Amino acid sequence: MSQDTDSGDISTQGAYVTGAEFNRDTNYIEDRITRDGAPGSNGEQGWRAAAGRYRLIAARACPWASRTVIVRRLLGLEDAISLGQPGPTHDARSWTFDLDPDGVDPVLGIRRLQSAYFRRFPDYPRGITVPAIVDVASGAVVTNNFSQITLDFATEWTEFHRPGAPQLYPEYLRPEIDAVNRRVFTEINNGVYRCGFAGSQEAYDSAYTRLWTAMDWLEERLSSRRYLVGDTITEADVRLFTTLARFDAVYHGHFKCNRQKLSEMPALWGYARDLFQTPGFGDTVDFVQIKQHYYIVHEDINPTGIVPQGPDLSGWLEAHGRDSLGGRPFGDGTPPGPVRPGEEVTAGHGAGS
Amino acid sequence: MSQDTDSGDISTQGAYVTGAEFNRDTNYIEDRITRDGAPGSNGEQGWRAAAGRYRLIAARACPWASRTVIVRRLLGLEDAISLGQPGPTHDARSWTFDLDPDGVDPVLGIRRLQSAYFRRFPDYPRGITVPAIVDVASGAVVTNNFSQITLDFATEWTEFHRPGAPQLYPEYLRPEIDAVNRRVFTEINNGVYRCGFAGSQEAYDSAYTRLWTAMDWLEERLSSRRYLVGDTITEADVRLFTTLARFDAVYHGHFKCNRQKLSEMPALWGYARDLFQTPGFGDTVDFVQIKQHYYIVHEDINPTGIVPQGPDLSGWLEAHGRDSLGGRPFGDGTPPGPVRPGEEVTAGHGAGS
Repeated sequence: MSQDTDSGDISTQGAYVTGAEFNRDTNYIEDRITRDGAPGSNGEQGWRAAAGRYRLIAARACPWASRTVIVRRLLGLEDAISLGQPGPTHDARSWTFDLDPDGVDPVLGIRRLQSAYFRRFPDYPRGITVPAIVDVASGAVVTNNFSQITLDFATEWTEFHRPGAPQLYPEYLRPEIDAVNRRVFTEINNGVYRCGFAGSQEAYDSAYTRLWTAMDWLEERLSSRRYLVGDTITEADVRLFTTLARFDAVYHGHFKCNRQKLSEMPALWGYARDLFQTPGFGDTVDFVQIKQHYYIVHEDINPTGIVPQGPDLSGWLEAHGRDSLGGRPFGDGTPPGPVRPGEEVTAGHGAGS
Repeated sequence: MSQDTDSGDISTQGAYVTGAEFNRDTNYIEDRITRDGAPGSNGEQGWRAAAGRYRLIAARACPWASRTVIVRRLLGLEDAISLGQPGPTHDARSWTFDLDPDGVDPVLGIRRLQSAYFRRFPDYPRGITVPAIVDVASGAVVTNNFSQITLDFATEWTEFHRPGAPQLYPEYLRPEIDAVNRRVFTEINNGVYRCGFAGSQEAYDSAYTRLWTAMDWLEERLSSRRYLVGDTITEADVRLFTTLARFDAVYHGHFKCNRQKLSEMPALWGYARDLFQTPGFGDTVDFVQIKQHYYIVHEDINPTGIVPQGPDLSGWLEAHGRDSLGGRPFGDGTPPGPVRPGEEVTAGHGAGS
């Protein structure tokens, strides 16, 4: 869902400011991709899950898109759903495929993600956001409803999961996962943006207090349990992880979320490193693209466009000691194998480099 | 020397940008205040040290000015030299006395420090900087040569020192103090500004490397010695301290000096806390004014003007354990007594609040 900017016209951006407080445009293309193409429970248009039919467009820079990259890899959906990756920066109108040869996505044949939105709705009025799932045959966006995409990967695409894929959204834990996700979304995932895009000192002060109240809640919760819900990794961990991965690199300074660094919160930092070192998480994180995205795109916050060299990220690879809390990362399943050729994080862009 | 801005016209500001690299205007009013009014060794005009004749103008926000506040207090010059303190922010032309009743300095009777510069030179073309020493009778600036002011306090004003005043610039250590000061000035005191005011990514990258090379040098030097030079506090410690006091609060995020926080450099952080807890250092530090100054004044870097709530500064008061390195903070002297009434840091503006 990232076309995150504080500068945009409400009609063309994924975010806007009401009064002084940042709010997120939560209207999405809510089609569902389901096991049999049945519509969603609220009548959302249904599309059938099928190998090779869809392309996931997800920029490495974006925390909301990165969730889908992690879940696709954890579940082994690489062969079923191809991946297109826009570059870290974008212009006022669209994410672009500037990392691809000639700046063109090799499957969709487009330069700007906007084109796929316009194939679907010629007058599409809102933000051109990632993640987006595109129907390859028509080149049109099927859905950009980021909060549903990963749940559908976990529950509707099971036929295409790899052997040993973990249960990321097990039925018996859904109420607890949903409750945690709600608080993590409003207070953390979106809470950092509320700090960074605050339009007044008062709005910022209030956003900061809200964020750190929730950070303290997480620190407490994670001091006695290895994962957010249950004793295995779930959708809840994926959602928190992509914000934590950006915390010290971007949110601490750029968004003024600076009571502490993540690395100064012992339980949260151990938890984040544990996940980072779990196959499927850290091997999708490109810190260079992450920093470029925020520091270059948000001209209203960082008008110079200069990208900090710091922080030193080598700590992500240090021992986390979280095994002592028990837990079985993949439950009855197994870790994913190596990252697919062509999808590796560029050398020098990960931790410790 | 702070009228620090990256935006200024060279003719009216204390800083400017040559190409993409930040440079500091180092032309000052170089008059000296000496024991007997003799001119300086380079022919600088001399004024006689005399109790009650001069007023020191020094904003708490400014690291260069804060040196003079610390040294004045360490040496017990409060009765000899009165102190005027402009507020943390200033407009494009001058520091102002906006914290004083009716916005007027009670001794000089002026609202803007600029007025005292114009009394001295009606067409004064450069930055209106602090610290400045003003001749009370004429209301004219005598000197704003920050690097000389503290040395003269230590060596020319000895008649007015308190009993037990430390030797901040002892003759036998001067070559070493001068050498350390040179490197600390170019690489650290000014090095953080070189990062923050860099006009291009390349200039910033180079400034960052330079800064951290020097930070590593200091970390190494201070891991085996309690103070920078000799075994007591000296002028060298005062000069480094005022930059370190601002490091995590401002330079880390605002100036992108973010490889580590100061609090992540064990020797430097212990050293900084040791000084902070030494009478005369931490009791002059106003973190609220410091943060307001940088985040509000530097509109080119922080256009929103929003001042971060973080970082948590309570660590400044934690045990530093540096006593084990030996050293005698005040040498054969004694610590200064309590801060003078009216000169205390405002409640809630120091560490731990």
